[in-house]
Amino acid sequence: MAVVNAADKNPTVLRQLRYGNVERVLQVLRRQGPSSRADVATATGLSRTTLSGIVGQLLADGVVTEEPAGPPSGRGRPVHRLTLNPRSAQAIGIEVGRERITVAIANAAHEVTAFAGTHHAQRSGAREQAGAALELLRELAAREGIDLAGLGGVGIGTPGPGDTTGGPGDATGGPEDTTRGPADTTGATSPAAGVPRHRQTVADAVAEALDVPVLADNNTRLAALGEAIWGAARGAGDALHLTLSYGIGGGLVAGGLLFRGAQGAAGELGHISVDVDGPRCWCGGHGCLEQVAAVPALLRAAGRRSWGRFTQALAAGGETERAAVERAALAVGRALAAASSTANPRRIVLGGEVAELGPVFLGPVEDAFRRYTATRVQHGVELVPAALGERSGALGALALVFHESPLLAGYATAAAAAPEESAGEAATHAS
Amino acid sequence: MAVVNAADKNPTVLRQLRYGNVERVLQVLRRQGPSSRADVATATGLSRTTLSGIVGQLLADGVVTEEPAGPPSGRGRPVHRLTLNPRSAQAIGIEVGRERITVAIANAAHEVTAFAGTHHAQRSGAREQAGAALELLRELAAREGIDLAGLGGVGIGTPGPGDTTGGPGDATGGPEDTTRGPADTTGATSPAAGVPRHRQTVADAVAEALDVPVLADNNTRLAALGEAIWGAARGAGDALHLTLSYGIGGGLVAGGLLFRGAQGAAGELGHISVDVDGPRCWCGGHGCLEQVAAVPALLRAAGRRSWGRFTQALAAGGETERAAVERAALAVGRALAAASSTANPRRIVLGGEVAELGPVFLGPVEDAFRRYTATRVQHGVELVPAALGERSGALGALALVFHESPLLAGYATAAAAAPEESAGEAATHAS
Repeated sequence: MAVVNAADKNPTVLRQLRYGNVERVLQVLRRQGPSSRADVATATGLSRTTLSGIVGQLLADGVVTEEPAGPPSGRGRPVHRLTLNPRSAQAIGIEVGRERITVAIANAAHEVTAFAGTHHAQRSGAREQAGAALELLRELAAREGIDLAGLGGVGIGTPGPGDTTGGPGDATGGPEDTTRGPADTTGATSPAAGVPRHRQTVADAVAEALDVPVLADNNTRLAALGEAIWGAARGAGDALHLTLSYGIGGGLVAGGLLFRGAQGAAGELGHISVDVDGPRCWCGGHGCLEQVAAVPALLRAAGRRSWGRFTQALAAGGETERAAVERAALAVGRALAAASSTANPRRIVLGGEVAELGPVFLGPVEDAFRRYTATRVQHGVELVPAALGERSGALGALALVFHESPLLAGYATAAAAAPEESAGEAATHAS
Repeated sequence: MAVVNAADKNPTVLRQLRYGNVERVLQVLRRQGPSSRADVATATGLSRTTLSGIVGQLLADGVVTEEPAGPPSGRGRPVHRLTLNPRSAQAIGIEVGRERITVAIANAAHEVTAFAGTHHAQRSGAREQAGAALELLRELAAREGIDLAGLGGVGIGTPGPGDTTGGPGDATGGPEDTTRGPADTTGATSPAAGVPRHRQTVADAVAEALDVPVLADNNTRLAALGEAIWGAARGAGDALHLTLSYGIGGGLVAGGLLFRGAQGAAGELGHISVDVDGPRCWCGGHGCLEQVAAVPALLRAAGRRSWGRFTQALAAGGETERAAVERAALAVGRALAAASSTANPRRIVLGGEVAELGPVFLGPVEDAFRRYTATRVQHGVELVPAALGERSGALGALALVFHESPLLAGYATAAAAAPEESAGEAATHAS
């Protein structure tokens, strides 16, 4: 007889049960608003001892507050109510991108309470960039009166393996376009490598400064998550994201959660082969989408040196530019069709410079996508432009903390079907 | 400010918490073996009242038993211990396929305790087939001494939308090959339809007879789940499954769970377009893999009428057959490469008549797959033949119950990373 019982082999199950209890208490407070300890005990089924320990820790961390519900009635002690503390930061999202650093802060009620962005100094290293991000965060928290003591984690997005959004100075499409400008000073970003050194350095510096769990991932993939929770794929549950820039990167969101796959390469739609006779790609494949539809490929096809010139010529009716765009659009549409036959998303989000060409590109993408997709799939999927712009990476990093921080296990359920409200109204400061 | 708090809008959260408590109790019993109520209370943190209600229900359902742990020591009452009842069926899986009915039974410890299969009567309808499945189930339970009173659900797999494994009598590849022989008497199986009437009829009959939740899905997709939990993709977590038969169907397993996507079309790899100039497919797409690599396509390419003749000619060195097989293999390899760039599985399982050709087909599939896949992805993925044969559908249906029955919510975690043991040793009776 086969015993299929992973719990037997999994020493973390009881730990998960304990973290799960913390989440259950927070879930009741989010759901029911201010509640007495007795109400929370009833809703969760937890014992007085267990509940008392959890509430004690949450009060000590400043995540919840406890106050009398009103003047004492009669002889008994006043009833106290537990409330989520809206001024306590529970999660922070940071993107250290090629040119910009962005920071977002959220509280235990999953409200994005503040956002800020800044350009980082040219040629700065990973440590300097981490320092700049921490400074930006502390300024923002001070200005908004946000308490950082109860943090459950920090999410960080940086370029690197999995990411193929190359630098504007490199129009070759070769392997070197994964080392992209000042944000990436290590060169250790071949697709077979582990965590890039730049990302590790930033993560270590932030973890040390704030003394909380840090989760780091590729920034394009986090943009996919950001769009899924707060942007163009909000409420879609299952979504594909494609960033068409100097490289082509993407992400797959399943049930509102980032789906990485076995080697963390899920959603790498830029390396779907669209040409059986195509040349070898730096990734090791042949005839990859990136070789046809990324900015460098379009520039090559039209004999242009800069994206500005390319878009000007396209707007002026340039035939060569238009043909290159249509060829790229056919390839993108076919790759999205193959990806949709695999993952069957409800929404496909297109971002990056090439997508920003607008209808001249997106129209033929949609035509090709529908031609090469089963009717059943066609009817249920929308292709939409990205909505969050420069905010997507930091917001995705924030969502990553809620989904995956060991201190916040269990948030996944709540975030999986995000409500149709916008994060765009959070307090914002650009410097 | 954006409040991302799905719990506020989700009335089922408290119900899930309650079902979750039942699962937590079972998880402790599976993990720790026979346990006193005090031990269970400590491990779960549940209150005496909550625990008492749950244990009472589990005892009434026969899912657990409670016995003295030994002779009374000293003056006190003897300590009682709760134990999972190995003779109580918790889940049943049924496949009503084109030609066969198969049934599998598992207990609360996730052990597959019995399996049986039978051919169903030619030209029988859905009600007759449901009756035959129930009869097979009751005979099997009686013979093995299995109690059906504590059932948490029944899973059922049948052909139908999502399924494209056509019938051997139909070599056209047209839309009519989704109505396939006696198992499917409705014709209501176009890819745009909802639940096929045949599946609904079988599911209704079983639900009425056994009075438990019934979950039904496409049998090819369930085969993917069966292979992932108990077969060739066991322990892989993320897996793709491709069945190459008279049609081409598939399934995507993510984190050990079936992944369906927005319209339940995830894993439909037979409708990835492999030919930009290919003809329109019955699915609505163009140049689909199924038009090149399914049995009817191979027969057409070689001018053969039956699969037996085709394989004989191939074995005898037939050039036309070999060329058709290699063309199919290139297309399959490229489609699997595109699917892997999207979902990045750890294992890809190939089943069905075409895969059963063996190395003459699987060799060139692997070559093409590796040529068109990023090095990073290539290194971490295995292509393997299916392992469960006719058992895969019923075992997948069983896993579906553990993962998704509303009475068993929470099993997902335990089943997601199934241990490396085989279900093949379960008691088996073929009739």
